This record gives sequence, C-alpha cells and structure tokens, in this order.
Amino acid sequence: MGDFLVIGKRLPRVDAGGKVTGNAIYLADLSVSGMLHGRILRSPHPHAKVLSVDISSARRLPGVRAVITGEDTHGIRLWKRPSGEKPPLAEEKVRFVGEEVAAVAADSEDIAEEACNLIEVKYEELPAIFDPIEGVKPGAVNIHEKGNIHISKSYGDVDRAFRESDYILEDRFETQAQQPCCLEPKGCIAHVDQLGHLTLWGMSQILHPYRQMLADALALPLTKVRVIQLTLGGSFGERMFMDSMPVIAYFLSKQAGRPVRIIDRGNESFVAGRMRYPMVIDIKTGVKKDGTLLARQVKVIADAGAYDNSCSVCVHGIGTKCTYLWGVPNVKYDGEVVFTNKTYGSNVRGFGNPQITFAIESQMDMIAERLNMDIRDLCLKNANYEGQIICMGSKITSCGQKECLEKAVEAIDWREKRKKPGNRGVGMASFMHTGGGIRGMAGGDCNFSDVFIKMNQDGTIDLSSGAVEMGQGTDTMLAQIAAEELGIRTEDVNLVTGDTSTTPMCLGAAACRETFIAGNAVRIAAGEMKRKLLEVASKVLGASLDNLVAEGSKVYVKGNADKSVSIARLATECYNKGEIIAGRKCYDDPTRPAMHGGAPTYGFGTHAIEVEVDKETARVKVLNCVAAHDVGKAINPMIVEGQIEGGVVQGLGYALSECLVWEKGVIKNPNLQDYKALYSNDIPPIIPIIVESNDCIGPYGAKGVAEMGAIPTAAAIANAIYDAVGVRIKSLPITPEKILKALEQKKTR
Amino acid sequence: MGDFLVIGKRLPRVDAGGKVTGNAIYLADLSVSGMLHGRILRSPHPHAKVLSVDISSARRLPGVRAVITGEDTHGIRLWKRPSGEKPPLAEEKVRFVGEEVAAVAADSEDIAEEACNLIEVKYEELPAIFDPIEGVKPGAVNIHEKGNIHISKSYGDVDRAFRESDYILEDRFETQAQQPCCLEPKGCIAHVDQLGHLTLWGMSQILHPYRQMLADALALPLTKVRVIQLTLGGSFGERMFMDSMPVIAYFLSKQAGRPVRIIDRGNESFVAGRMRYPMVIDIKTGVKKDGTLLARQVKVIADAGAYDNSCSVCVHGIGTKCTYLWGVPNVKYDGEVVFTNKTYGSNVRGFGNPQITFAIESQMDMIAERLNMDIRDLCLKNANYEGQIICMGSKITSCGQKECLEKAVEAIDWREKRKKPGNRGVGMASFMHTGGGIRGMAGGDCNFSDVFIKMNQDGTIDLSSGAVEMGQGTDTMLAQIAAEELGIRTEDVNLVTGDTSTTPMCLGAAACRETFIAGNAVRIAAGEMKRKLLEVASKVLGASLDNLVAEGSKVYVKGNADKSVSIARLATECYNKGEIIAGRKCYDDPTRPAMHGGAPTYGFGTHAIEVEVDKETARVKVLNCVAAHDVGKAINPMIVEGQIEGGVVQGLGYALSECLVWEKGVIKNPNLQDYKALYSNDIPPIIPIIVESNDCIGPYGAKGVAEMGAIPTAAAIANAIYDAVGVRIKSLPITPEKILKALEQKKTR
Repeated sequence: MGDFLVIGKRLPRVDAGGKVTGNAIYLADLSVSGMLHGRILRSPHPHAKVLSVDISSARRLPGVRAVITGEDTHGIRLWKRPSGEKPPLAEEKVRFVGEEVAAVAADSEDIAEEACNLIEVKYEELPAIFDPIEGVKPGAVNIHEKGNIHISKSYGDVDRAFRESDYILEDRFETQAQQPCCLEPKGCIAHVDQLGHLTLWGMSQILHPYRQMLADALALPLTKVRVIQLTLGGSFGERMFMDSMPVIAYFLSKQAGRPVRIIDRGNESFVAGRMRYPMVIDIKTGVKKDGTLLARQVKVIADAGAYDNSCSVCVHGIGTKCTYLWGVPNVKYDGEVVFTNKTYGSNVRGFGNPQITFAIESQMDMIAERLNMDIRDLCLKNANYEGQIICMGSKITSCGQKECLEKAVEAIDWREKRKKPGNRGVGMASFMHTGGGIRGMAGGDCNFSDVFIKMNQDGTIDLSSGAVEMGQGTDTMLAQIAAEELGIRTEDVNLVTGDTSTTPMCLGAAACRETFIAGNAVRIAAGEMKRKLLEVASKVLGASLDNLVAEGSKVYVKGNADKSVSIARLATECYNKGEIIAGRKCYDDPTRPAMHGGAPTYGFGTHAIEVEVDKETARVKVLNCVAAHDVGKAINPMIVEGQIEGGVVQGLGYALSECLVWEKGVIKNPNLQDYKALYSNDIPPIIPIIVESNDCIGPYGAKGVAEMGAIPTAAAIANAIYDAVGVRIKSLPITPEKILKALEQKKTR
Repeated sequence: MGDFLVIGKRLPRVDAGGKVTGNAIYLADLSVSGMLHGRILRSPHPHAKVLSVDISSARRLPGVRAVITGEDTHGIRLWKRPSGEKPPLAEEKVRFVGEEVAAVAADSEDIAEEACNLIEVKYEELPAIFDPIEGVKPGAVNIHEKGNIHISKSYGDVDRAFRESDYILEDRFETQAQQPCCLEPKGCIAHVDQLGHLTLWGMSQILHPYRQMLADALALPLTKVRVIQLTLGGSFGERMFMDSMPVIAYFLSKQAGRPVRIIDRGNESFVAGRMRYPMVIDIKTGVKKDGTLLARQVKVIADAGAYDNSCSVCVHGIGTKCTYLWGVPNVKYDGEVVFTNKTYGSNVRGFGNPQITFAIESQMDMIAERLNMDIRDLCLKNANYEGQIICMGSKITSCGQKECLEKAVEAIDWREKRKKPGNRGVGMASFMHTGGGIRGMAGGDCNFSDVFIKMNQDGTIDLSSGAVEMGQGTDTMLAQIAAEELGIRTEDVNLVTGDTSTTPMCLGAAACRETFIAGNAVRIAAGEMKRKLLEVASKVLGASLDNLVAEGSKVYVKGNADKSVSIARLATECYNKGEIIAGRKCYDDPTRPAMHGGAPTYGFGTHAIEVEVDKETARVKVLNCVAAHDVGKAINPMIVEGQIEGGVVQGLGYALSECLVWEKGVIKNPNLQDYKALYSNDIPPIIPIIVESNDCIGPYGAKGVAEMGAIPTAAAIANAIYDAVGVRIKSLPITPEKILKALEQKKTR
C-alpha cells in the first residue's frame, strides 16, 4: 500500500461532484435545438398477426411531424442471431405485450401520445406461450420459425465420473425474472442531418460496439454514425445490446428532418425493459466420500422472452461457468433458449452467473450435509487455485478464494452461529467470475481497450477513452491509474469519454473488464509519458534517470526532495519545444484464451449471511451480510466497497423479493411500487471485506469487481434459511409463502 | 498529378454539405439548457476616468440574473504584453468608445439591454488622441503608463549600403483601418458549472492556445477550461487572440449559476471589432543602376488603437518581412506601436504583410521607372530563389516566384497593355509570405500539430485534430491527405475537431500553417497506419510488402488488380484480433528556424491587374485581375483557387474602398452599408494561376495559401493606376477623391 501514491486510496469519485451538484447531464436534461418528441405505439397482445396499421388519422393531428410503421423499417433487424432476429417495428407479427408497432414524432410528448392512440391496428390473435417448460414440449406454439436454440458442451468423461462417485445429487432450481431497475428511464435522441449523418445520444455501456450495432442495422458506414453517451443512471447489462428505440428514433428523425427524443414514460421501462433471464436448472453432481467433486451435469432451460437479445450468449456462457467454480473436471452441459410471448430479457449484472451459482452453491450446501461435512471444508477441499487451468484454456492468474471464504466465515462468526437451534441461521455461498472481460464479447477474438492521453502545458492531462462510466467507478479508476503513473493528482486528470467520434476504440463495460483492460492501457500509455517526463527532468536536474521519482506533481532526485522540478514546468518546456507529451496504447488481453468466454483473470468471493426467519409469518430478516471479495488490488477501496454493497443489495432483492409477474403475457407489477426492489431502509448491515491477491497482469494487481456482489447472495440466503428452519427453497425469490409451504410439508412428512 | 489518388483533385469540400444544407451549427444556432442572454455596457467616451458605476437599478429589473462591473473582474488581464494589458471590464479608465464597462445576464437579450441602460456610470473625460502621428510626438497624451512600444532591427550595414547605392528613393505610404467583416457576428457561450469548470463555446482560429489564454486570464488549470469551436463564419485573424467577451461571459455565468450567451448586436462587431492595423510607413531604398537592391530603411508607425492586442507582434513581424521580399541584404528597421483612443486592432489576414507590401511594391514600381526598367525585369533581377537563406536563418525550401511573375504578366498581356496611352493601365505586385507557420506564435519555440487517427472496423476513419476550419479548407486538406495516404475515399474520413478536451494539441490556424504542419502530421500518422494495413494484407494476399498498393479502398498486388483485399476487411480482421489500427503523430517544423518569425517555408506570388480610371469621376474599374501563386502543390486546386479569389477580393476592398472612419473617437461607418466592402456584384474577373514548386518538406509538396491573396493586391492596383493616368497614390484606400486631387496637382505642376 505504502508504495503507491494514489492507488489504494479512498479518494472521492471524479464523477461525484457533478452528480451531487446536479451538474451531470442525463438524457432527459438535454434538449437539442428543434427537437421533437417521440412516442411508441405498443402491442396489447402477447402473440398476434398484424393485419393492418392505419396511420391516416394520426398524420392529420396538428403538431404531428412523423409517423412510422413496420413498413418504414421493413427488413431491418436489430441484431443478427441464429434465431429470433428482431425488427425495430413489428412486421407480420407481434410477439409480446409491449412490442413496438408504430411510432410518432410530434411537437410535444402529449401530442405524440394522442397520435399513437389514433393509429388503428387490426390484429388477429394467435395462441401464445408463457412458460418455457411448455415451450420445450413437442408441438409447442412456434414463436419464431427457426424454433428454440440448443447449446451443449462437454468436458471430460461425465458418465465414467458419475460411476466413480460415491454420492450423486440431483436437484432442480428455478430463478425468476429480475428487473434491473435503472434509476434513469430509458431514452435516446436521434438526429439525422440532411447529409444522412446520424448522431445518437443514447444509453449503452458498450459505446463503440453499440455504434457498430446501430451502423449494421441501418447499413451506414461508421463515420456516419456518432453515438454520444451522457451521464448514465445505471445500466446493469440491461442497456448493453441495442433495442428498437434508437432505430425508431432514427427513422422518425429522418422523416421529420429534425432531432427526435424518445424517453420511457409511465411503466415503459418495465413493459419494454429487459429482465434477467429466468431459468430452470437441473443440476446433477457426483462426489466422492471425501468431498472431491467428480462430475456435474447441468441442464438449463432459459426463458429468452420473445426475442433472443442475448439469451443464447448467456446460455453459452453458463456452459463454461458451471465447470469452473470448484473446478469440476467432468461436465456435461445442455442449454435450451426457449422463446415465450413475454418481454425479452438481457444479461443483467452477472451474465448468467447469479442463476447458475444459486443452483451450484445451494447444492454444495446439500452435498456437505449429505457428507456430514461443513460446507466450509467441502469448499476449501475443492477450492480453485492460482495457476489452475480451467476450461477455455484460461489460467487462473491469481486466486484469493480460500482467503475470502475464511475471512467471510470468521466475520460472520460461523462456528458460533452455524447449526444452532432457534430460528436464526447462517449460510454461505461463493462465486468465481471473470474479472477482466472475455474474448468474443463483441464478435471478434479480442478483449481490448485503446486510450489516448495528452498532457497539457500546465501538467494536467486529458485522458480519452471509450470506456463507459455507468456508475461503477471506471472514470475514477482510470484517473487514479493515470495519476499514479505520472505522479500527479487525480483531480488533474480530465476524463474525455462518451463519444464514439472523439474517443479511441474500446469494447466498453462488460464482464468486469474496464479497470483491468482499459486500466492496463492507461497504465502503459501514462508510463511511457512518464519516461519522457523523466528524460527531460534528468537534463534539468542533472541527475540520472534511475535516480528520479515523479510524485506530488514534481520530479525530484531520490533522497533529495529539494532538488526538484514541477511537472507543470516540464510540460511547459516540452510544449514550448513542440515536443508534446502524449501517448496512445491499445491493450488487448495478452493471455489470449479461447473465444466465447476465455478471460484473462477471475474474481472470487464468498458471502456469509445471517438470517432470522419469523416463526409465524416466515418473513426473512437479514441480520448480517458479509461479502469478502478477491479484487486483486483495490485501486480505490471506497468504490470497491460501494460496488460490493450495491451488488449485495441487488442480490438480496433477487433472493427474497424481486420478481416480475405476468398474467396472460401482461406484467402485473410494472412499477417500483408493486415490483419489490430493496429501498434504502430495507438494506441490512453489510460488511464488505477486500481481499487482495495482486493479480500478476492486472494494473497494480487489480481485477474487476462490478458484477460480483450480485452473484452468490441468493444461495447464501437459501443456505442460511435452511440452517435456520431446515427447509430448502429451490426457487427464487424465497418468499414467506414458499417457506411456510415448505415448513408445512416438512411437518406433514 | 497522375501519381496521386485524391491529392490534386477538385473534390468538394468536406464541410460544404453542412453549410449549404443549413446543417452546420454556428454559435447563434446553439441554445444550451438554462441559457441566459448577456449584454455589455460600453463606454461612450474615447478617454475618461470612471468615477463610479451604479448597478442598483439594473439589479432590480425583473429577469436580470447577473450584473458585473470592473470590480468583479478587478486585476484580471486579457493578455500579458509589455505595455497595454487590457482588463476585461474597465477599471479606472476607459480608453476607447465601445470599451466594456459593465455587463448583464438576463432572461432575454432585451431585458439585458434594458438593464444595461439602467446602469449609471459617472465619467470624467480626459484629453484623447486619435492620430498615431500625434501619438509619437513628445508630450502627447499618455494612454498607458508605460507609453508606446519601440521595436528596432538591423541586418547588414545599411549606412554603407546606402553610400554604395546609385539611387535612393524615400517615400511615405499610409494604410488604413480595414474591418475583416466576418459574416458571423462575434459571440460566445460560457458555462461555469458548480465545480468551477468552464465550458466555452467560442470563436477562435487557434483553439488550443486560446484555451491557454483563457486559463491564464482566469487562473484556472487547463483541465478546468474546455473550449468548443462550432462552425466558424470567418475569422481572418481578427478572432485569433482573446478579447473581453469570453471573460465577461465567464463572470456572468459564475454569478448567475447558468450558461450565458453573448452575441454582438447591431454595430458591435464594428465598434468592438478588431481592425487591420493602420500604418504610416517611411521606406527608403538604395539601388544600383543595374537594379540590384542594396539597402532598405523602414520606419513604421502602427496604430494599435487603445490596447496592444497583437500590434507589437505585428510590428515585430514587419521588421523581418521588410527584409525578405527581393532579399535585401542590408536593412534597418524601426517600428513604433502607438496607442490611440480608438478600438484596438488585430492581425487581419496577412499579419502586417499587406501594409508593408503596399509600400515595398509601390516603391519597386517607382524604382523601375527611375531606372527606366520594366518592373518585371527589376523584380526578376532581385528574385528570391530556392536555397536562399533569409534573415531568421530560414532557408527558402521552394520558390516559384519567377514562375508566378512570368505567368501573371503573360496572362494579363503585359507587353501589349503596359505603358499604353488612354485611361487604362496594368500594374503588378508580388509577395512573399510564410507558408507553414512561424516559431514563437504561441509563445514557445515551437510550430507543431499533433493528430490522432483511428480506423473503424469498416475501414473508415476518425481523424482528430486541433486544427481549426474557419472557411479556408483545412478540414478538406487533412481529409484528402489521410485518404491519399491510406488509399481510401475522402468521404470516408470523419473530421473530429473543435474541442480542446477531445482533440490533440495544435497551434491552430495562423500564418498559413495548418496544411503544412497539421498536414504533415496526418501524412506521417496515416502513413504508419498504412504500413500496418499492408503488413496484414501481405499475409492475406501472400505477397511481399513492396508489391502491394493501397488504392480505391483496397489493397492489391501490383499489376494484378484481381488479387486484392478490401481495406474494410483488413480493418475488421485487425479489430477482431484486438489490433486496433490507430496512430498519433506530433509534427513540429524540423527546420527549427529562429523564434519570433522563423518559418519552415514560404509562399510566393504575383498579382497583375488591369484597371480603367474614369476620366471625369476618377472611379477605378478593375478590368482583370490575375493572381499567380506558388502554393507548392495544390492539394485541392478548387479550394486553392477559392482562397486566392477570396484574398484578392479582400485586397481589392483594401485597395479601393474599405476604410473605417472615426470622428472624435466614434466610428462613423460601423455597418456594412456605410463601410464599403466588396459585394459579389463588385467583383471583377479574377484569374487564379496555380504554380507548383513542390516544396521538399510540405506534405506532397504543399505550402499554405490562405492569407496570400490579400497581400499584394493594393500595390498592384496603385501601380496599375499609375500606369493608367500617371498619378501615384501612396495612401489607402485609393479613392476617386485622392486620384482627382493628384490629377489636379499633376496638372498644376
């Protein structure tokens, strides 16, 4: 710690000032000259043929500037996936309640809304399907011609391993649809100028790949598409891949010849929002008497909703995720992406890992019981380790898994509290998750960030990056890394981000990659700049390069703080000689593991949670929540803790209360009153513990942390409830009703 | 020509589409959320003490959000010059009619104006001075404590050279105040956020140095100052250095807590605009019988107006400019920067060269007559030449001076028309001007541009540069250079400019430097990117690097067009491997001549003009105007011709009609009706002739051209008038009155 100047320090976030003062510009704050307001007409039916769309009355309404239907966007597809390509506006069919059918741009939102109501759509209703279990049955309603998608993977010899196992456990777990509940309503502004250039103020956590998606959909060259990202009020993976809205705004703007803004109103962020994929997971695990895990067979039925936004990517990913936690050598995996007539999902925080980890870690608790072991010992026996080669050819470059586990159980007072009478219990669950992005995320066999840095004449710097700050702290990470490397203050680093035209390429925020990948790029580029600074300082101070230190915005001779020159002066001198101190670095994960999931590094952690289950109501009260995370190195412990805490809160909602409920394809709780995410007064005490394994390739040893907190919480809660009252709830959320029912069944047994 | 793909082609300007469709955003088009409107209260007196400023009534007016006076900005100086530092708002004194005394920000321009009228200022008038000739007399009114500024230079042995001369001519020439007449009214928007960060949407042709000026004046770190340049409706040097407006807008915004826009209204762009410095030039030249120029002594009295915005820089520059045209070996120079109680000037197109060239080239015509030589032969005898070392240590790297002269006289039909009876005449005048910037312009010993280029996945590129397009065609030059180097289409190059945060450092548009300096940076950076492309192509095509050509957005094997791969495919393949094709290059003039004027290269040219002088009215009709320019290499001949033509038009106004007229310090013609710039129907036939000397260090041989056209026109007109009617008019503009008076005097002599 002591070796660093700003790394490891609890510095304020660089974006904090803007957010607390109201200076930060969110999409709804932005008004572009001549801007119109767009509204989308949505399908009231979960599955229907679109017979006709009559827009003549809407067009006649004064103040209406553009009206578009599926005819205007015919043939355009939002993304190219093997099955389930989505048109921006419905063509022959609608496939979920809320699907986009037509859109209007007008002088005001109210006029646009009124015009939408004047559009007459004739539908012919079709039989619909809502349950993915029904969807895999032969003869089920076919939502897409090409049908469902099957993905299977196999590692080692599962059949033999099961034969060699002493115990085999088979369980089914079910997870629900979780809404990520971004604080900011979804929206965009599209401006197509008369030369056909599109500027989109949008919302995406992967800025540059998003531009590519938009350009691909619209068949425009990339120089004609500029995506600008303002301050983001959350994204959580939901806003990673493109949806219909920007394409609709594009066509409205093109028709009207003016910029068009669309922002979700009322319940739209729920109705057309993207849930965490619900899954039914059958997991069969073979284990030796001593606790050695031998084999695992996993079958996943994933509910994609009406379109495959990224469900197939997620189901693909689970096929590797179910092999690597506790390093099971023999794995057979079958995943089924099933379409249903519901709003489609996306990869919310954790990218499938919260689902599969709920199954794996719930079952680990059950295995421990069967073996009469403490789950702690079972886990330690099978623990991952540094140097381990997992599937995909990835090597675990650093591993604080054991340390996390031990610190978590110690902090929760495991020995004292586990298996004690009464209605209190403790449970634990661990996770392993990619900590530096994965290859193949954006199509290519790559995992890179490019950065450009320039030093101003006064020694301050502009740092240009395509990385996206969505609340997770990337901007601060990059600023601290640049400041550390150059020996300057974090506040002297100006972040230039959020614009595809002005920033270098980056794959954006996904799979906890930005601190690791963009951070490494910044570290190297700033390091090269520092070398240049020291060379100049060496002449000024008459000292050898090796003898110089950059610190406190000065370069000084080691052991002689009086002999120094300010970095501002060095920068001015270089500027005045035309020797601009600037640098550029593209960092691509040098370990180059396999495509479609290979990661350069992994994060680990254990959550240990204490609950109390009310004897009468079965209401679960979370008493304590310890979350120990191996983050490699905490660049800013305050932000790391904030990320852990945020993840835990989202995980607690996932475990106990959050669940989208449909009735005949209609979401019955499409708002924050009926959909129960945790509010601040619902949040229990959370103790984040940072474990530093000092990754050998991460910047200063750091690994990603943003998604992690959401992953193991549900299993830890389920295990704690079992410890408290002896019932095993295998479906999320764990409501009092489910516990009461299980207690009832237990009594009758 | 044939060797190039896009260089030398008459391609449409990359900014043309935006300008003709109205897509281009000028300052007045931009409205920032919450924006207020600012107005400035100006002094009605040319010279007065400010006794008191009472803003109480103004503050009380509903809708007024901020009122500031010199007290709010006390001690701040717009620039640091040895004499004549200017406060943004007057403190103890006002020094010209129109000087900024107080300012208001309000909900509308009208309210702000009304509030200005409510401000009560008490003045005590002081004796004023308007004539710079009066200003140099002992005991003259002292406008600034430190007095006028004297600059002198000496090269060789002038006294001896005069003694060795056969003839010595001594003449006084006078030039007037020319208003550059930018089509766009001057304005800015300042937004100071609650964290103290300033964003300024301003007008400056030197974006990055302008940020430095602003940060210096406000004592802010550079990361807290962001200057954004929208489309510029002309600048012509007038808007190069900072004036009061952005600083006033800053303080209004700071007080109001909201963005503030100020835009010139009514006559303000004249009243507070910056004129071309009027000068009185005494020039004494010694010449041998054979026409060899031996010695030159020049005394310049320059009228700075009330403050030294950049007059001392200009007067400094003339000290070198008067040595190098026709390479006079012995020169003595004295320049006096004189303050007067008039609006202060700036360095309008040509940076002092139109003034001194009017004197030199008028006198060359007189010397030729004295020697009984044709001016053509006199000039050819003394012509500059490639390899010549001029003062400042600069070497002339390319020189098409003779060719320009010969082509110009041929095109005007010199032999037929010169010295012919009647009232028609032809005259010529030549110039030499820096063609690639000068060292010392922005303070440091540098002349650089940094550029950053990235190739998108589809082979299109984003080219980021701090160079400023102000109408002269820089964006198109840079796009063509990048396209040429990479073998792609110009329209596939997206220019990213106009923002200090997002663009790399560049000293901006001045001294005809951008095509040369930024162009070289682009050429080298794009060249490095091309090498990378060819390396990849070499593997794909199985051909050696030397055998590959990039052309038509493809790389193909020489002599085998079928064996090719598209650049889009190469770019995608690189992207998919995480090998981003991007580059950065800072180019600083490698010839490194002396500070304060040393240039890497020079442009040359000759204008030959035919006029007819009306016998009765003495009205001058320009019949033909030939302008032959050595531009090194015309990257885009259409734009080069446009620049030459624009310069000639401004030069014709300078020669014949444009002149600001003051009466007791008040401009009497502060509008485009009374101030006579040329309108389109006033413009005579202009024949631009491009001479290509292929500069050895310019990109593809190119040199700058933007300022040149304005330089020699006035002398060519004066010489043509002399050829037509035998009178020598030595003061600009050459009005019919002056000609009639001279004809009268000639008759009486």
